[in-house]
Amino acid sequence: MTNQQLIIKMNLDAWNSHVSRTEKLINSLSDSEIRQPTAPGRNTGTYLLGHLVAVHDAMRPLMDFGNKLYPMLEDIFIKTPDNPGMEKPAIGDLRNYWAEVHASLASSFQKLTPDVWFMKHTSVSTEDFEKEPHRNKMNVLISRTNHLAYHFGQLAYLRK
Amino acid sequence: MTNQQLIIKMNLDAWNSHVSRTEKLINSLSDSEIRQPTAPGRNTGTYLLGHLVAVHDAMRPLMDFGNKLYPMLEDIFIKTPDNPGMEKPAIGDLRNYWAEVHASLASSFQKLTPDVWFMKHTSVSTEDFEKEPHRNKMNVLISRTNHLAYHFGQLAYLRK
Repeated sequence: MTNQQLIIKMNLDAWNSHVSRTEKLINSLSDSEIRQPTAPGRNTGTYLLGHLVAVHDAMRPLMDFGNKLYPMLEDIFIKTPDNPGMEKPAIGDLRNYWAEVHASLASSFQKLTPDVWFMKHTSVSTEDFEKEPHRNKMNVLISRTNHLAYHFGQLAYLRK
Repeated sequence: MTNQQLIIKMNLDAWNSHVSRTEKLINSLSDSEIRQPTAPGRNTGTYLLGHLVAVHDAMRPLMDFGNKLYPMLEDIFIKTPDNPGMEKPAIGDLRNYWAEVHASLASSFQKLTPDVWFMKHTSVSTEDFEKEPHRNKMNVLISRTNHLAYHFGQLAYLRK
């Protein structure tokens, strides 16, 4: 295994481990537990679950895998802060969206050859990418893993 | 820049950005704000600050940079869960330890050549490392960055 293959494996392992730990937590919580704020006056589990699904779904176009599966989540869970007055999808639907988005990402990741991981993501221009070659698909994976870990730390407070 | 140099830069950027965001948050909080629980019944800011310093200090021996600077933190902030009865260092001291540990890590990281990042960390044997070459120094950095992001998400709840 070359160092390049190794580093892809290491960053993918970190992503997979955080997706699976978060999923295990979510599966252990009832819908009514997920509806609670993670701390007084802070985001609810519903909002963070929807936010993570929406942000991960947006990795599809960003990494050139295809369109978003659930584009309607962006307005509710990215553009708008948590707000009890906002109509949100049912938690059962969010659980299904979570599963679909991560299954689709896993299948796309598996097809990427090592070199493609170091190619530009779709929101950087070819000119800028020449000057900033770190703005590649691997970097999207790294930053989304850290973003997931950040919110997983907060979701963990829903545990009794 | 080779892909190997690029990936080191990307993972170091992620580490540095989380260290500096966490530091900015801690610097914006008073000692009495840091003493509060991050959520009712959850770890205090003091405990999480000490925990992060202790875990990052332990990266020094693990990555073969030298001994821990503050070995006495392990018992209080790693081996023992948060406990109001436990005597802890003053918050001013923890702020200084944070600065020292991260300055020392930054200086050690700067001296590492690309190949050394892919060499084994000190808690894996040479035999096991042959079978599991991902157990290298770069992987320590990746997993500690995610661990930091996890607790940074919780520390963020100390903000008013």
